[in-house]
Amino acid sequence: MSRTPIQFLVAPKEVKRFIIECMVAIGTEAKHGAALADTLVAADGRGHYSHGLNRLEMYIKEVKTKACDGNATPTIVKETPSTAFVDARNGLGSVAGIFCMQLAIEKAKNTGIAWVTCAHSNHYGIAGFYSQMATRSGLVGMSMTNTSPLMMPTRGKKEVLGTNPIAFGAPGMDGDDFMLDMATTAVAVGKVEVNHRKQIPIPTGWAVDKDGKDTNSTSEYNDGGKLLPLGGREETSGYKGYGLATMVDVLCGVMSGGPYGERIRKWTGDPSEADLGHMFMALDPSVFINDFPTRMSGLMSDLRNQQPAESDKPVLVAGDPERMQEKLVEQDGGITYHVSIINAMDQVADSLSVQKMERTSKHS
Amino acid sequence: MSRTPIQFLVAPKEVKRFIIECMVAIGTEAKHGAALADTLVAADGRGHYSHGLNRLEMYIKEVKTKACDGNATPTIVKETPSTAFVDARNGLGSVAGIFCMQLAIEKAKNTGIAWVTCAHSNHYGIAGFYSQMATRSGLVGMSMTNTSPLMMPTRGKKEVLGTNPIAFGAPGMDGDDFMLDMATTAVAVGKVEVNHRKQIPIPTGWAVDKDGKDTNSTSEYNDGGKLLPLGGREETSGYKGYGLATMVDVLCGVMSGGPYGERIRKWTGDPSEADLGHMFMALDPSVFINDFPTRMSGLMSDLRNQQPAESDKPVLVAGDPERMQEKLVEQDGGITYHVSIINAMDQVADSLSVQKMERTSKHS
Repeated sequence: MSRTPIQFLVAPKEVKRFIIECMVAIGTEAKHGAALADTLVAADGRGHYSHGLNRLEMYIKEVKTKACDGNATPTIVKETPSTAFVDARNGLGSVAGIFCMQLAIEKAKNTGIAWVTCAHSNHYGIAGFYSQMATRSGLVGMSMTNTSPLMMPTRGKKEVLGTNPIAFGAPGMDGDDFMLDMATTAVAVGKVEVNHRKQIPIPTGWAVDKDGKDTNSTSEYNDGGKLLPLGGREETSGYKGYGLATMVDVLCGVMSGGPYGERIRKWTGDPSEADLGHMFMALDPSVFINDFPTRMSGLMSDLRNQQPAESDKPVLVAGDPERMQEKLVEQDGGITYHVSIINAMDQVADSLSVQKMERTSKHS
Repeated sequence: MSRTPIQFLVAPKEVKRFIIECMVAIGTEAKHGAALADTLVAADGRGHYSHGLNRLEMYIKEVKTKACDGNATPTIVKETPSTAFVDARNGLGSVAGIFCMQLAIEKAKNTGIAWVTCAHSNHYGIAGFYSQMATRSGLVGMSMTNTSPLMMPTRGKKEVLGTNPIAFGAPGMDGDDFMLDMATTAVAVGKVEVNHRKQIPIPTGWAVDKDGKDTNSTSEYNDGGKLLPLGGREETSGYKGYGLATMVDVLCGVMSGGPYGERIRKWTGDPSEADLGHMFMALDPSVFINDFPTRMSGLMSDLRNQQPAESDKPVLVAGDPERMQEKLVEQDGGITYHVSIINAMDQVADSLSVQKMERTSKHS
């Protein structure tokens, strides 16, 4: 067979090397590049490709245009034994996020619970990366961030809230953690993009067209459409998803002193600072009970062991699809990337004089 | 006109008097009856009739059969400056809930944040009652409770999680607070009941029939049907509502050491103890910024002042429908009750030798 392969495998370590070298090439310190790489590689490894390597060019552009300061280090503005207010100083969101969750974990280990609010930050990758930092320390963790407006609220006409994700993690036995990481829109933008590429219509309830009418057409969505909140339209309780998205902005935008709602810069093409806010919570279950991980695994077993409606589709718990994907990466010895992203990264490599990612073609 | 009135007005104080006297008549201390009355009257006053007077007979039955101990007082089992583990000792959920949130508020005022987990409790009414206790003290508040299984999880066949509500409140200016109080099912059972009474079909995405198939028939729901999680089916992201419901059970059932998921007793007819768990969080925004309520009102104004899709349906924020209802109660000088609930309460009054509720007929 001599046809061009359409899928390639790249070892996670190699993806990380590539991201760090790209960031260093544009003047970012290696340790900050490594923080960014950790969050992007985690996203790709879990199958959340929309938040991985796919976004590297955006981060590079933001640092090069100085919309984001790649070398800024976060500082603690105010703190108590159980809380901290952190200024990300317009640095990389991943750097701020890792700093804040580490701080929350340390505080929670002393006091049982900690809450950290982060101001003046940038896109921090997948929210679930931070809640997982907590579960890996044996704690319950939560993280949220506000984002640029994409969601049309119930009864509204235009997009005024972001996809504002909520991540919640709780440690089970042997690393089998409950990991919820969800946009508060019905779906993230990436899902609409996938259907568009595959030319599959989208289900009613995902999005509306530019006039706010239901649409099943990805082209109509791309032409000024908006995402619907989780729950869809009002009659199917879309106001709950809208309420959750608002809650996220209360805890991230309002609470951080930064912009909120439609005051946040647009998703694309806006050269100003993102000025996003995040929240991080860590909670030590041992201040209540001693056998939390055992009980947590008990709940997850109960849920997984239910009889499924269709025998080939087992009931899952939050985090299972990502775990399967991570297992696949381990089996394959690398993350699977489509040729389009490999080609795009090769161009980035050329433009920054960085060594291209080593890969092998994947035989499907 | 001599036809029988179908709606009556009862002053909130009179509803409260009635509830307290009923509870005292079955041996419950007046102060505990008052706690229950406060949460039930708040629910009815906000238009959440499913959680108000409508449930009084259930509470009476539970106390009379000793499934719930009406006179138990909650005790603190374990605490740190920012956390507490409370044993409700199988007392009234409202008594435990008020105790726990009061404790969380006091702790948060000292340390910035507090988290209280409550074990061995009973139905505590509307979750939003407790988050509002926090907002009335100038704090951000959150409360959740697990409940009896009614929700069929994504890919499942039977009900294994409750409607597991999430309440979140944040203080705005002049008592104009953001108040999210939502079941993590697409809708609460009460909504299906309302459609059933009015003989209106239910929208696809609310519920499934006994075999797990989509249904628009309330009769099919009543014949062994189950509620769907917020988001509905898998293709419209119902797994997110399922994930949120699981999160609630992690924080309430798993964390409290009590039963979780389908180990919780059935909603009706089960004479055993409910053994529910709740969580309460209070957070003082002033540990981060000084102008939280002003900024909060700013966000709510932005959201409300959007141009609506239909000019007669303004964009709302969470808590607005309840506020409108409360204003109506004030204007009318009483809560509006349907004749059926008035008749049922008259029977309760007779059976307990308590004075019937004073009411006036409402001319609609």
